Amino acid sequence: MSPLAAPVQATFRAIDVIRKKRDGGELSRGEIESLIGAYTRGDIPDYQVSAWLMAVVLRGMTRAETAVLTDAMLRSGEVLDLSFLPMKKVDKHSTGGVGDKTSLVLAPLVAAAGLAVPMISGRGLGHTGGTLDKLESIPGFNVNLQVSQFRSVLETCGCAMIGQTAEIAPADRKLYALRDVTGTVESPYLICASIMSKKLAEGIDALVLDVKTGSGAFMKTEDDAAFLAELMVETGERMGKQVVALITDMDQPLGNMIGNALEVVEVVEVLRGGGPEDLRELCLELAGWMLQLGGVSDTVAEGRQQSDKLLSSGKALDTFRRMVELQGGEPRVVDDAKRLPQAPHTATISSAKDGYLASVQCEQVGTACVILGGGRERKEDSVDPAVGIVLHKKVGDRISAGEPLATIHYNAETKAARARQLLEASFQIADAPADKKRPLIHRVIGKPGEKN
Amino acid sequence: MSPLAAPVQATFRAIDVIRKKRDGGELSRGEIESLIGAYTRGDIPDYQVSAWLMAVVLRGMTRAETAVLTDAMLRSGEVLDLSFLPMKKVDKHSTGGVGDKTSLVLAPLVAAAGLAVPMISGRGLGHTGGTLDKLESIPGFNVNLQVSQFRSVLETCGCAMIGQTAEIAPADRKLYALRDVTGTVESPYLICASIMSKKLAEGIDALVLDVKTGSGAFMKTEDDAAFLAELMVETGERMGKQVVALITDMDQPLGNMIGNALEVVEVVEVLRGGGPEDLRELCLELAGWMLQLGGVSDTVAEGRQQSDKLLSSGKALDTFRRMVELQGGEPRVVDDAKRLPQAPHTATISSAKDGYLASVQCEQVGTACVILGGGRERKEDSVDPAVGIVLHKKVGDRISAGEPLATIHYNAETKAARARQLLEASFQIADAPADKKRPLIHRVIGKPGEKN
Repeated sequence: MSPLAAPVQATFRAIDVIRKKRDGGELSRGEIESLIGAYTRGDIPDYQVSAWLMAVVLRGMTRAETAVLTDAMLRSGEVLDLSFLPMKKVDKHSTGGVGDKTSLVLAPLVAAAGLAVPMISGRGLGHTGGTLDKLESIPGFNVNLQVSQFRSVLETCGCAMIGQTAEIAPADRKLYALRDVTGTVESPYLICASIMSKKLAEGIDALVLDVKTGSGAFMKTEDDAAFLAELMVETGERMGKQVVALITDMDQPLGNMIGNALEVVEVVEVLRGGGPEDLRELCLELAGWMLQLGGVSDTVAEGRQQSDKLLSSGKALDTFRRMVELQGGEPRVVDDAKRLPQAPHTATISSAKDGYLASVQCEQVGTACVILGGGRERKEDSVDPAVGIVLHKKVGDRISAGEPLATIHYNAETKAARARQLLEASFQIADAPADKKRPLIHRVIGKPGEKN
Repeated sequence: MSPLAAPVQATFRAIDVIRKKRDGGELSRGEIESLIGAYTRGDIPDYQVSAWLMAVVLRGMTRAETAVLTDAMLRSGEVLDLSFLPMKKVDKHSTGGVGDKTSLVLAPLVAAAGLAVPMISGRGLGHTGGTLDKLESIPGFNVNLQVSQFRSVLETCGCAMIGQTAEIAPADRKLYALRDVTGTVESPYLICASIMSKKLAEGIDALVLDVKTGSGAFMKTEDDAAFLAELMVETGERMGKQVVALITDMDQPLGNMIGNALEVVEVVEVLRGGGPEDLRELCLELAGWMLQLGGVSDTVAEGRQQSDKLLSSGKALDTFRRMVELQGGEPRVVDDAKRLPQAPHTATISSAKDGYLASVQCEQVGTACVILGGGRERKEDSVDPAVGIVLHKKVGDRISAGEPLATIHYNAETKAARARQLLEASFQIADAPADKKRPLIHRVIGKPGEKN
């Protein structure tokens, strides 16, 4: 139905923007800015914005619209001014996976290389873990710093890791809460704007994106992951930042440990120069890119070499210990893992037959950890830092009947039973090894400044 | 993102229904009934329902879903029980047009033929007029009867005309208000469910639908009109009712008069056996179908003949006069049009050249009447019953330079000036007559029980 000719109606009307997107039109900068501004101020109701969000999910957005939306969300709040720091500011963001604890390695590692890493992270979402939950398994660690404290930690040790503050991208906080309850999370355009608005509000110069693909990722197919990655890289570039995205594998958990305190243990292993091969390799690759974008190495390969040295020399671990202490955490967890929370019980899941581990239903493993209490089934749930899963085999490994596949760390039998059921259904054992191994790094998208 | 396996979550979750429709799935009866029930009770918020509505607009619905939605909305309130009346109950619904006053003719005409017409109508919407606004131009006429009064009027004179009550399809009232502000009006599935849930709550046996197409209709193309008509006919049939839909022309206003009291004048002309040819013809055709579906005539042609006689004998007019009186209105308006509200001023719009009236931008003519005060620019506006437009030429008529095209009946110069501007741009004069005349009845959809 056509609206009446209304000559006095020169101002912004949410309904017109909803209709335009519903009919597949491209929104102007003014329309997007007015909508986001009015919503953040509380001038338009949730029910109009949720209709608009669903229209965006089903009609999509152009690259220009996505960049404008990101910019409007970014500018709904404060953008950190870190110009008092002489070095370049670099960050990494992952779209989320199971056992993905790279942030905890990368922040101190890249800081030890002379860059600043002002990292604002999130909590566990669905079947995936959250950096904040992992950090909070360290007794005393405070992720809720004031901006002034955040700046001070950053100045002292080169990195700091906190949760989103009320000042950063308030439009995203409001929109995300609405998307979560209206079935409008699953849109690459909205995911891009949400991630990039928060990350660019950190006042960084460069960003490395780790976009996961596979059975444990939100983007199950490589095409979906690449689409989102390209969108984020282009959005970042349109906003004058250096951005590169790595499409990486999440078809099995990363590393061997899943669960908050358990993952801190594995982080320390990597920071000591050890740790599981896949986790160490991904950390080196991401660090290589961060160092190259940050200008402390000429190439990614050189950045990897530097990073490797910082791990074996213990300098990265020193930075981690320092950051933990500065943020109120118990620094001795680094040297004594028993100071981290420990689950009261463990149980083993063993293979029923001889063969090779052919695949892991990775999302189910993440869900098993949530069921144990390592994540949230409802938003208001609290997390048990001690529980989790330790995997003893990676895809491709040989296994004998009766040999352990995984160990469950649990606090209640009923939860352990549910988790066991899910885990047992997650491992596929084949008679012969797979012909082809999935690569850890599938693709790199956007190579700003890469020299060779 | 996949939801967590939540074993205790056996109950209905709105988010699951939103996601299913977003992804193009077909909703089950249980899902639709739970959603509509919970929304009507206030158990789920507007922002979830508006996201679902947008998903329906963009993903569509199957015929089965549309029927279930209609049924759920119908059963959200009271269904009138008119079984105390021995005759069949028949109604007509129009999708809305300009100058469409057929309801005021049909209710008394079909009642005079021995059927009951329990008509629940609406107000003006956008550029189209509303039956209730027209009735209220009759001094004293009360459209807000209690159900008991409605039944009593119906029993006494065979027809009664009221507005929607709080008891009838409350889900539709809530949904319609939300659709109006969230850009989710324009969906044939939602339009069908809205119309049919209200009409079938009247406790009728048969329904004739007048689906308008052309420049003054909500459905501009015949294909869109036919799609909606088929949907409504099938929905009615699935619910055990006899339903037929006529696709009729709304490319120029129906009859010559537009405006509430002016339209009552024209209604009385038709009820006296006169009136403009197109209006009279459409009334006879619709009445023919109503009589045939109601079983008082064997064929539509026979129903037309009976109706023609009821007009020329004055019996239909007597029923109208009786209904007006029973609903508190001044019955003498029927014999003395001056007892209806009269606008203080009139002005004429004349043709600038010799030629033939080639076309009328019908929606603009409707909007001109709204601007004069005959409809609402905002929901809270009151309507001036006296203002309106009298057309002196129909499409195809010959016209000379200086000859009047239309007369504006107005109450304020500023409004008249705006309406004149719009009207002058609405008439197209050509040098030669058009080759082909648009038919008044484009198509008939669904012919239940038609014998020859």
